[in-house]
Amino acid sequence: MAITRQHFMVGDIKAAAPGPVISQVVTHNDTVYLAGIVTLPPNPDDDVRTQTRKVLQRIDELLASEGTDKSKILSAQVWLADMDTFAEHNEIWNEWVDPDNPPVRVCVEARLAHPDFLVEIQVTAAR
Amino acid sequence: MAITRQHFMVGDIKAAAPGPVISQVVTHNDTVYLAGIVTLPPNPDDDVRTQTRKVLQRIDELLASEGTDKSKILSAQVWLADMDTFAEHNEIWNEWVDPDNPPVRVCVEARLAHPDFLVEIQVTAAR
Amino acid sequence: MAITRQHFMVGDIKAAAPGPVISQVVTHNDTVYLAGIVTLPPNPDDDVRTQTRKVLQRIDELLASEGTDKSKILSAQVWLADMDTFAEHNEIWNEWVDPDNPPVRVCVEARLAHPDFLVEIQVTAAR
Repeated sequence: MAITRQHFMVGDIKAAAPGPVISQVVTHNDTVYLAGIVTLPPNPDDDVRTQTRKVLQRIDELLASEGTDKSKILSAQVWLADMDTFAEHNEIWNEWVDPDNPPVRVCVEARLAHPDFLVEIQVTAAR
Repeated sequence: MAITRQHFMVGDIKAAAPGPVISQVVTHNDTVYLAGIVTLPPNPDDDVRTQTRKVLQRIDELLASEGTDKSKILSAQVWLADMDTFAEHNEIWNEWVDPDNPPVRVCVEARLAHPDFLVEIQVTAAR
Repeated sequence: MAITRQHFMVGDIKAAAPGPVISQVVTHNDTVYLAGIVTLPPNPDDDVRTQTRKVLQRIDELLASEGTDKSKILSAQVWLADMDTFAEHNEIWNEWVDPDNPPVRVCVEARLAHPDFLVEIQVTAAR
């Protein structure tokens, strides 16, 4: 069994709020777990399309750092701050996803850690 | 490492809304990931008991397609559109689950992708 | 492949509401899945700090029962009944987590199964 971790501490996403100590990526044998990714720092000018694009780009970077890529994503969970943005979110998702190798997915609405976060995505991949 | 996928594209669950490109099932070695399952098409006449029954039947079918069954489910996540239906949902869950081999589970409330979806369930199983 | 399970049935967390038949822990080969853990029975006098402390203590116990510990947690999901308690929750999380081996994490707001539940945490660990 081998576990590797890439650490970070979320900083001041809320004034006076301590961020949690978490890893961005944890790899266990050939399974790569990513944290829930949001756009940091939060930007009230970014709509859900822009935020989805940035989140997916960050996911690409994190997967690459573990020697894998979006064609090997197994599972994705998506939280939208407002389900009325489902269609806009999906437009960007569908441009990005590998059409021959899409993951399973869940997408539900949830209030996120900062009011300017419109989307959060967590993926698990093989490598 | 072996990954297999069964694809589908969610169609018109909302008028004028593109559905996401996702798989229904992704199998990585001996772990089977299912998408979040809802009753398609959404039917406003189905109460949470009926929707839970249909979702669990669909999960049985998808597990069977990968050569496994509900006795090998490892983990389940349940989203209810209204937590006041927790008891009714659990009645159907408890009739269905293998009492000798229940999975771990989380159940929380969330607004789902369509207002007529009352329950969504995602499971991960061994095979 | 080896699967082991530790069972339990949630009792009367709501008056007249049947609890779901689930396991607290399911272990598949070297991956340990825990149920979403809340403080049972719900206590309206416990604030989110106290509940987080109790939930994490219960997670420690369950991990120990499978021969593992918090340094091997791979992934965590946190649901807060009120995202305004994010900072208080994180204080307790940060005191508890192994700073050299933090898991990936998601934290979103959700209505939980009982109004006195302020936090629910689910983890997956290696062993």
